[in-house]
Order: sequence, then structure tokens, then C-alpha cells
Amino acid sequence: MLEDTIGAVGPPDEPAMTAARQLQARLTKPAGSLGALEDLSVRLAGLAGSCPPPVPAPAAVAIFAGDHGVHAQRVSPWPQEVTGQMVGNFLAGGAVVNAFARQAGASVTVIDVGVAGPLPVPDPSGVADPERTCSLDGAAGAGPLDRAAGPAVPRLVDASVRRGTRDMTVTAAMTRDEARAAVEVGITIAEELVDAGAGILLTGDMGIANTTPAAALIAAFTGVDAAETTGRGTGVDDLTYQHKIEVVRAALRRHHPDPADPLGVLAAVGGLEHAALTGFVLGAAAHRVPVLLDGVIAVSAALAAAAFAPASVAAMVAGHRSAEPGASVALRQLGLTPLIDLGLRLGEGTGALLALPVVTGAVRVLHEVATFDSAGVAEK
Amino acid sequence: MLEDTIGAVGPPDEPAMTAARQLQARLTKPAGSLGALEDLSVRLAGLAGSCPPPVPAPAAVAIFAGDHGVHAQRVSPWPQEVTGQMVGNFLAGGAVVNAFARQAGASVTVIDVGVAGPLPVPDPSGVADPERTCSLDGAAGAGPLDRAAGPAVPRLVDASVRRGTRDMTVTAAMTRDEARAAVEVGITIAEELVDAGAGILLTGDMGIANTTPAAALIAAFTGVDAAETTGRGTGVDDLTYQHKIEVVRAALRRHHPDPADPLGVLAAVGGLEHAALTGFVLGAAAHRVPVLLDGVIAVSAALAAAAFAPASVAAMVAGHRSAEPGASVALRQLGLTPLIDLGLRLGEGTGALLALPVVTGAVRVLHEVATFDSAGVAEK
Repeated sequence: MLEDTIGAVGPPDEPAMTAARQLQARLTKPAGSLGALEDLSVRLAGLAGSCPPPVPAPAAVAIFAGDHGVHAQRVSPWPQEVTGQMVGNFLAGGAVVNAFARQAGASVTVIDVGVAGPLPVPDPSGVADPERTCSLDGAAGAGPLDRAAGPAVPRLVDASVRRGTRDMTVTAAMTRDEARAAVEVGITIAEELVDAGAGILLTGDMGIANTTPAAALIAAFTGVDAAETTGRGTGVDDLTYQHKIEVVRAALRRHHPDPADPLGVLAAVGGLEHAALTGFVLGAAAHRVPVLLDGVIAVSAALAAAAFAPASVAAMVAGHRSAEPGASVALRQLGLTPLIDLGLRLGEGTGALLALPVVTGAVRVLHEVATFDSAGVAEK
Repeated sequence: MLEDTIGAVGPPDEPAMTAARQLQARLTKPAGSLGALEDLSVRLAGLAGSCPPPVPAPAAVAIFAGDHGVHAQRVSPWPQEVTGQMVGNFLAGGAVVNAFARQAGASVTVIDVGVAGPLPVPDPSGVADPERTCSLDGAAGAGPLDRAAGPAVPRLVDASVRRGTRDMTVTAAMTRDEARAAVEVGITIAEELVDAGAGILLTGDMGIANTTPAAALIAAFTGVDAAETTGRGTGVDDLTYQHKIEVVRAALRRHHPDPADPLGVLAAVGGLEHAALTGFVLGAAAHRVPVLLDGVIAVSAALAAAAFAPASVAAMVAGHRSAEPGASVALRQLGLTPLIDLGLRLGEGTGALLALPVVTGAVRVLHEVATFDSAGVAEK
């Protein structure tokens, strides 16, 4: 399945890109005045092979969740059971990704690709926190919104490959077969969502300690030193940060991952959600559907996808610039400029969701804006 | 009316801001992981005087249109009649601002505050450009969207103060009474939109040559040289650009505008839409409703609003960083960091509309996201 998917990833369609450039020049606006949105619309025309490309809707976020053996090295201040607890929060609709998905009208699918502990049963009552309204003056209009608003309730997919990776400082995080199985989970989810009608896929992730394998993957695929690919994740102190860099270095020294063998890199120093996201990106590219990347976990997986199939980069749109330094290292190598830069470092798919209206807007311009001729507007 | 509005602009509510900061710390996400969105939510709580602040919806864009006597100095390659033609395009729903407003669910109000020529009658048939579908392969899903989708049809308000300003290199662009009348048009529009239920106001503008008075206003209010506040607008060549800087300098030399007298500055080197936007910002601030600023025209008007009422800055949210260099000069003086930076230089309100989901998302987090306690998620 992996090889078929890689084989289906093709180059962008040049005539469609040329047609999109020509259409942009005829629309009632100064040439170039939509900046990065014009380039984005041209890329999406090339991906779709049509001008205008289809409006990228509906949107589907897939949150791949996994745990990490390297958590034992104390690289995160959070207990490992938070991964499963947050999966419960996603399913109950209480996380930031849920709020943003409801606003954007995006569906949410949560995939257990390797959570270590048991998953809590979500509370179906959907009772909002009674303390939520901290309103001081009882301002009109304030108060909790209805969480049921927006698309269908989040869905959980059980696709666990193993209950968390092994500690990569001691042994390979996964076997090659496990890594392949996780990649193929991502491909399958992408195909299911596209078959169900999704016009754009968004990456999401959850996994306590998962910025550590992301830093290792980015170092392995770019050759950049771990000190530049490792960040503070959810916010570690100076001592833990220095230790985290050493942990990444130790894993790289132990495995010497070969960037020409992306499955080997994922198995040695990756995570189950990183491997699944790699497949998710490849699946989107094989179906010529855009995939909107979230933060550092997503772009580390995107590097693996690009190593499997360089042309898959044409399907990638960088949603935002994560505060994690490794994200910028990866984006540079991918040649992608993020749409939003607001200092986010939450993951879950939140940065991708914030960028979604920019992508949709870029395409709607090609569909809806009048030309100089049709509107009777003079040109300069 | 201007004086009453200025008097109604008050400082942010500190207890509401403190409550918002405390709530952010209890939500199920690492502290600070939403970056600029957390600060934004705190500012909006301070503006509303409540935590959580009301969700900023529905949104209303006001596009103030005017012409400029300084157009005679050949500062723009576009003919002046394009201002009125684009007003027709806005009313027909064919401009980029319309596409973005439909997507964001925002209403569009076009205000003729000083267009020179006659306004074309919009074509009510809404017939799309027959050549629009440039699709090469007839891809499924492509094709024009229904322009009738989204909120009500754009509305035109006739509030013309005069049919374009005078040439500021020869005489004052407006009398003080004309400038005041234009400011009060903006205040009235803001009040009408807030009274009709708008939860957030967005600035829009249209006026061929209006980046020239914007550059002069920014230079006058910041003391920065015209070479740094003047940009290429819709895209002038090198010779015209140098000439445009000299035109701005000549106007400033002639009038010596005093930044402590904002009405005098607007009258001397402003535009009718710049003055109206100044009132629009003041009106929003007086009603404690956030105003999302678009590009260089908006931020030049925001400087005037801040000169009238320094506390009005608390109501301002910078939508995007315009490619015009003067916008960054103005934002620095206002102490505002823009939400989006995509190289846009179109105006109309397009940059503000792209940023709207970020503002809404920042507030929805305070309403909808579970706390650690309520979700049963462990803390670090």
C-alpha cells in the first residue's frame, strides 16, 4: 500500500498553473496585490490540475495520538496519561482544536495510533464547566456557546499499532514493520476522508513528549544540529531543555538514521503519530487533495513524506510557523512559507485550522471575483 | 458629536483583563501555547469589561470611498473614475472584499463620503463572467460559486461631503468643517452598525491615489520622513515612486501640520475616507466594540483617532501588515502587532477580513475550552 501511494504522487499540472496566473491578472485588483494568496491559488490549481481549482471544502482534521518511550528520559514535565486524557477531551469537544474546528466548520477524527494507557470514556452529557462564566458584569452576549454547534461530533478510530514507542535512546522506537503499519494507518485515514468528500485535509497530533522525536526527525532529514531542531515544547525549563537536546543527540548517535531511508528514520527516532502523519500527507498528495500542515510534529512528518515522494510537497500548505525552532528548519528545507505566525505551540491541529480561511479565501477569489472586462472597471 | 464621542472613549477594564488571564491559565492547554491569541483575548476582555468578552459577531465591514485632488499630480497610474467603478463592483458583489466577506459571514456597507464622479448603477442580474471557468479539464467541483450566498447584499450609503478633496500640494485638502463632517460620517456609520447588532467592525476603503494622503498623515503623526512612509500603492514604477515621495514632502512643507491638532492634519493632508475612518474607529472605541484595522489607509486613520483619543487604541486590532511601508511605521507608533502578514496591498478591507477568524477564535477559546478540572486532565 505504501509503495502504491508513493507511486501515485505526481508533479503539479503546469497548464493549470499558467491558467491561474493569467486569471489572477484579469481580476479587478492591482496585479500582485493579494500577495501570498495569489501564489497559493496557483499552487492549488497545479495540484488539482484545473483552474479554478475546487474550493477546498469541506475540511477534515485528523488528530493522530501516540505515546513515546523516550518520555522515560524526563523530556516533558507532563505525565504520560495526559495523552489519553486529551483524547477524551477531544472526543468531548472541550479542547482548543474543537473550538477552532467548530468555527471553521471542519470535522474532527481522532486516531489512536499508539496511546499507552487506557482511553477515558468521554462524558456524553457535554455539561460545560459551571465555573466558566467568570463574567464580572454579566455582559450581554457572554457565556458558553453550544458545543454541539458545527459539524458532527468528533469520531474515534482505534488503529493502535502498539501502546507507545520504545525509548529511542535505548533501542529503535519501532520496528520497520511497526513504522510501516503506522504510515499505512495515515494513508488509510486520508483515503477514507477524501472518499467521504473532504476537499482539504488538516493535520493534528497529540502525544506527550512528541516534540522530542520531531526534533530527532528534523535533525535526521536536514542534517541540522539537534540544538537548532529542539525546542521547549510545552514549556520546559533551561535545565530540561539542555537535557532534551542531549537526549535527541544520543538517539541520533545510537541509530545514525539514513535520510535516504525514511522508513528507517521513522522506525529509529520517530513516533507512531509522526509515522501516521507521514502516510496522511502521502495519501493526500496521491489523491491531489491539499493537506494543511499544523506545527512541528506535522512538518517533521512532512519531511519524511518528501523523502518518500519529493513531489508530495506540491500538496502541502504550511498553516503556521510554530514557536518550536525545528519547525522553521523543516519549513526551510521543504521550501514552504507558513500562512500565519502567531507564536502558537499547542499542536492538535490548531494552527492549521486558523490558517484554513486563508486557503479557502485564496481559491474563492479565482471563483468569485469579477474581471476588469466583466465589471466595466478601467485598467491602469 | 465628535467631542461627545471622544469623551466616551474610556480605558480598558483591568479586572476583566485579570480574569481573562486567570481563565487562560486554567484551560486545557500548556500556558502560553496560544501565543498572540491569548494576549488578544485579554485585550478584548478589557475592552468589553467582561470575561469572557462577547464573541465578536456578527461582523460588519464599512468601505469608505473618496477621491483625491492630489491625483492631478500623477501619483497613481489608475484613472480617477476607477473609484466609482469599484464602488459599483462592491455593490454587485464582484470584488475581493465581497468574496472574503461572504466567506466570513460579514455584512458590507459602502459609504460614498466623497467620490468625484457619478456612481455606476450596479447590474442586479449578477451574471457571472462567462469566461470565468478557465478550467482546462472540466474538473468536478470547479465553477463560480453563488454570489448570493452569505449575508445580505452590499448596501450603499450616500454621505458625500464633497466630490473629492482639493490637491494638497496646492491648498488644504479639505476645510476643517469638511474634515469634521467626514469624521462624523464615520462615527454615525459605526453607531448605526453597532445599534444593528454588529459585534465587531472592520475598516474598508476605496479611493484611487489614497495611499498618498495616507503617507502624508503617517509622516505628520509620527515625524518619520516621507521616504519611509510612502509606498508604491497599487504598484508604481521607480520614477513615479520618487515623484510620489516628493509630492508628500511638498504637501507637508506647505501645511506644516501639527500632530496635536488631528482635525487640522486631516484637513490639510488627509482624504475624505481617511477622515471618515478616523470617526469610525472612534465610534467603535466609544461603544467598546473592537475595530479590526485593514491596511495603510486604516492605520493612517487610526493614528488620527489615537491623537483625538489615546485610549481608542484599546479598541483597535491590527488585521494585517500591509506591504506599504507606512503601515509598519504607523503600527509601531500605535504599539499594535498585526495578526497576518501575507504581503497584501489591496485595501477594501480584505486584510481585515482574512484576520477575522483569528479574532473570533481567540474569544471562542475563552467560551468553549474545558478547564483542567472540568475535563479531568492532569497538569504538569
